[in-house]
Amino acid sequence: FIPFIQYFILSFSLRSHTCGELRSHHVGHRVILCGWAQYLRQDLFVILRDFSGLTQVLIPQEESASHLKAVLSELTAESVIKVTGTVRRRPAGQENKEMPTGEIEVITEDVEVFNVCCKLPFEIKDFVKKSESLRMQYRYLDLRSSQMQKNLRLRSQLVMKMREYLCNVQGMENIIFINMYIFTSTTTKEFVVPSREPGLFFSLPQSPQQFKQLLMVAGIDRYFQVARCYRDEGSKPDRQPEFTQVDIEMSFVDQTGIMSLVEGMLQHSWPAEKGSIKVPFQTMTYEVAMRDYGVDKPDLRFNMKLIDITEIFTVEVEFLRSALSQPGGSIQAICVPSGALSVILFKEDGTLKSALKKLLCSSSAEELLNRTQAKPGDLLLMAAGPLHTVRPLLGKLRLRCAELLESCGVSLRDPSAFHFLWVVDFPLFLPKEDEPEQLESAHHPFTAALLEDAHLLYTEPHKVRGQHYDLVLNGCEIGGGSIRIHKASEQLHVLKNILKEDPSLLSHLLEALDSGAPPHGGIALGLDRLTSIIVGADSIRDVIAFPKSFRGRDIMSRAPDTVSEEELKPYHISVRWPTEGGEEGK
Amino acid sequence: FIPFIQYFILSFSLRSHTCGELRSHHVGHRVILCGWAQYLRQDLFVILRDFSGLTQVLIPQEESASHLKAVLSELTAESVIKVTGTVRRRPAGQENKEMPTGEIEVITEDVEVFNVCCKLPFEIKDFVKKSESLRMQYRYLDLRSSQMQKNLRLRSQLVMKMREYLCNVQGMENIIFINMYIFTSTTTKEFVVPSREPGLFFSLPQSPQQFKQLLMVAGIDRYFQVARCYRDEGSKPDRQPEFTQVDIEMSFVDQTGIMSLVEGMLQHSWPAEKGSIKVPFQTMTYEVAMRDYGVDKPDLRFNMKLIDITEIFTVEVEFLRSALSQPGGSIQAICVPSGALSVILFKEDGTLKSALKKLLCSSSAEELLNRTQAKPGDLLLMAAGPLHTVRPLLGKLRLRCAELLESCGVSLRDPSAFHFLWVVDFPLFLPKEDEPEQLESAHHPFTAALLEDAHLLYTEPHKVRGQHYDLVLNGCEIGGGSIRIHKASEQLHVLKNILKEDPSLLSHLLEALDSGAPPHGGIALGLDRLTSIIVGADSIRDVIAFPKSFRGRDIMSRAPDTVSEEELKPYHISVRWPTEGGEEGK
Repeated sequence: FIPFIQYFILSFSLRSHTCGELRSHHVGHRVILCGWAQYLRQDLFVILRDFSGLTQVLIPQEESASHLKAVLSELTAESVIKVTGTVRRRPAGQENKEMPTGEIEVITEDVEVFNVCCKLPFEIKDFVKKSESLRMQYRYLDLRSSQMQKNLRLRSQLVMKMREYLCNVQGMENIIFINMYIFTSTTTKEFVVPSREPGLFFSLPQSPQQFKQLLMVAGIDRYFQVARCYRDEGSKPDRQPEFTQVDIEMSFVDQTGIMSLVEGMLQHSWPAEKGSIKVPFQTMTYEVAMRDYGVDKPDLRFNMKLIDITEIFTVEVEFLRSALSQPGGSIQAICVPSGALSVILFKEDGTLKSALKKLLCSSSAEELLNRTQAKPGDLLLMAAGPLHTVRPLLGKLRLRCAELLESCGVSLRDPSAFHFLWVVDFPLFLPKEDEPEQLESAHHPFTAALLEDAHLLYTEPHKVRGQHYDLVLNGCEIGGGSIRIHKASEQLHVLKNILKEDPSLLSHLLEALDSGAPPHGGIALGLDRLTSIIVGADSIRDVIAFPKSFRGRDIMSRAPDTVSEEELKPYHISVRWPTEGGEEGK
Repeated sequence: FIPFIQYFILSFSLRSHTCGELRSHHVGHRVILCGWAQYLRQDLFVILRDFSGLTQVLIPQEESASHLKAVLSELTAESVIKVTGTVRRRPAGQENKEMPTGEIEVITEDVEVFNVCCKLPFEIKDFVKKSESLRMQYRYLDLRSSQMQKNLRLRSQLVMKMREYLCNVQGMENIIFINMYIFTSTTTKEFVVPSREPGLFFSLPQSPQQFKQLLMVAGIDRYFQVARCYRDEGSKPDRQPEFTQVDIEMSFVDQTGIMSLVEGMLQHSWPAEKGSIKVPFQTMTYEVAMRDYGVDKPDLRFNMKLIDITEIFTVEVEFLRSALSQPGGSIQAICVPSGALSVILFKEDGTLKSALKKLLCSSSAEELLNRTQAKPGDLLLMAAGPLHTVRPLLGKLRLRCAELLESCGVSLRDPSAFHFLWVVDFPLFLPKEDEPEQLESAHHPFTAALLEDAHLLYTEPHKVRGQHYDLVLNGCEIGGGSIRIHKASEQLHVLKNILKEDPSLLSHLLEALDSGAPPHGGIALGLDRLTSIIVGADSIRDVIAFPKSFRGRDIMSRAPDTVSEEELKPYHISVRWPTEGGEEGK
């Protein structure tokens, strides 16, 4: 049932044993079990369930125990009972090898019904399919499924082992701090919390970034927190407005130090039943990731790299030449093994099937096949245009092809493999989308430049790479961090001269960096995403006890909900109801 | 410096040792230390500090090292440096026994200045008194004091040991869940969070009460969370709008089970340097606590119990007789040993000094002294009136007397003593203050009745005692919990018939109690208050990394702050500015 619980704990409880615990060596013992009536069988047995497993409880058939038989036979499924009885070996031939307690059964001597279960909106069986909204509305029933029980317990134990590593092995301080403050950047999406002072608001943080840096300035040396964070993204699918980060910051450390710490923590806390993971993890620069995979979080469980085939086409094809004449113009391809789908198809007879074929001379065609290492039956996908468009496009196609092949039964990615990758040397700044001549931080304005690029901050900031690192698992970004700027003058230059922001909004941080700030850096790991990959869940909602729905609502407790004008009064706000014309009223 | 750190961790760091680590057996070692220049002495030494302690670093005086001398001699206090050097034994007679590293010093061979500290608003010395607002504004400097470093580290280790006990020893699941939901009771003070749906709000919870009960209905069996909670109490002094609870819930458990678990957890996690604590803790009923101490959280580190002296006065004194004629009329006294202050004074010559003396016959006076066990030099304080007024009054006087006596140098309470007490058998309902014929929950509407009182729920609810328990430490309430109602019919009766509340607001909980709810109960401990008592801090702000000020503000980051109309738009709210007349504008 839950194989990784090695012990069962009973102290302080009404029961003597759990339902997953009894074995043949308990035969003859008098036991007290508490749990849910999973189902009744032939008026002879009750299958009793708790968090640890199932036990078969015998309904007595003798006349003298008719009251017990009456109580047990009338039990509705999911009612909660306490059974006192004696363990006996199941009759020969009736053992159940699939069930950890399948060698024994318990003869009922006494029963107490704690709670009679009324009709349920769905059955508590793993194979019963439920709609997402029913699962959310009756989350307390959905969580009774063995899969959800497993997921939450694995998550609990994962976090505990991370804490042990960080606190006990690495001597880090677990500092739990406040969530409510005000963030000064206007680019982020943070929930606001009205205060009792007219016109003044708190906000709920997306991450405790500034505060953890201030802890380093405070001489705390090493900090971690399993931090609850908030992000208001409206109805973006599979993003939760509330999420959990494993947040870490260290003083007197470099990039390698943080990366080694995270590797050690993941290795220490990795669930034993998921195999072991090897450290150090592979490292790749942002440039190589974009060049070879068209994305900054490549899934390395399969190949199909992007291949530059610009040269092959430069002379021959007119409409491609025009694509190449743009700045950064390039032609890239991926080769999909056995991807007999369309576009450029390398047929079994060794010839190409493509609209391009007639545009390619035979030596170019040969060069193309050579360069892409295409084999008969393979598919070549090709795109021409500026690099910053072509690469992400083929990067997405690469993933889509993998999914398509797998849906057709081709075995491409090992579902039990965990491939970690560090992506490093990100650009520190990127052109703003709507104002390309203006730079914005690729991650956040506190990231330090690579030492060898630091001089470029004052001359060619767009060329500067940052001491930023992302941790990627199976093509998902599960964490990111950086070495921070620890000098006020450099931070001021970045804010004021490069980002053109008002530095007075961060005056407390600038002041702190002038008060004896140690070199420091850190990382934050997305615990929900990491756990969902480990357990193989489709959605992070399957590893969160009470997630919000797709639309960011709590369907069970009906939040958000209306609040009376009277209750809003102390906060000096009122609701602006949208008017019919789409405009908001006053 | 921080005596309870038994190990020093260096991995992944730029340093080879910490500043608190070096001893005589390191003599001759080449070391790298990182830290803050605590102070310079005679241009000869820099005292280098990190989280673990202090090391004396020698400024080289040779001509050949003049550049090192120049750098070190010009260091401002609190600048951050890296020193590479060799450990040597201090010259005979120059050892410092007060300093753990006092046997050695480090001869500088290389130095790197990470950060030059500008002028600070106050010195980082424990004996420098700072105003509360300066401490809050420059919290990152305030946290550098050895006392704050000690407090935060003790708190971190206390929590880690609690987790080990709950998770590893007791097999509880640590389920981290959401903070943002909507609470349906209007009596609580919860922050509201506007959503993107017009007129709909989330709220920030005071406690995860409903959700932890739903986890038990979900079959999680045992849950704990170090939960961040929110309470909007405006400007109540020494209450934080954000606070931390150790939140616990268990299935198939009774009151004794929860109490034993908490005792085990506190014993397991108690800091070794604070001595050990004895379990089980003393237990006292609410009735006895009110009778003997006039309060439901008595400080048992000293005596001075309330004494009922009603009988002595019943016949003799007219104006007391009228006080006694009220319902619940009573006369109570406390005897303050050596409390020679006023009111009824038992003089050294064995006579009473009091305005009452002439009203008492000698036998009554003798009976009074006998009943109160007053000795020469003692003070008797007395109050007449209804019990529910007289007891709390004398209860408060009792504490005030203890403070006064201690401020005069009388040793009454051992400052290193930790006296735990369970207070049990609270009334389940209390008359509403403004509507005394109407009952309200003494704690919350989910508390179950004592088994022997359960029948009274349907006949005389005001007489019902609840399965509620408070944990009191040295006269402070540090936790409270209860066994919960686990039957929908009983919960509905309490909500609808006794509390006259609209049960539809809690329909999801009522439905859950009809879906197979196990008997369950739990507790929440106030981590901030508990830690502050352990470390002997005056305020819980001294055990919180970034507390809010008395007025609930974050002075450092200037929160709460204004938010533009543009930013409020997606949330469909606008600010109602107070007008001059005191009314709010539209």
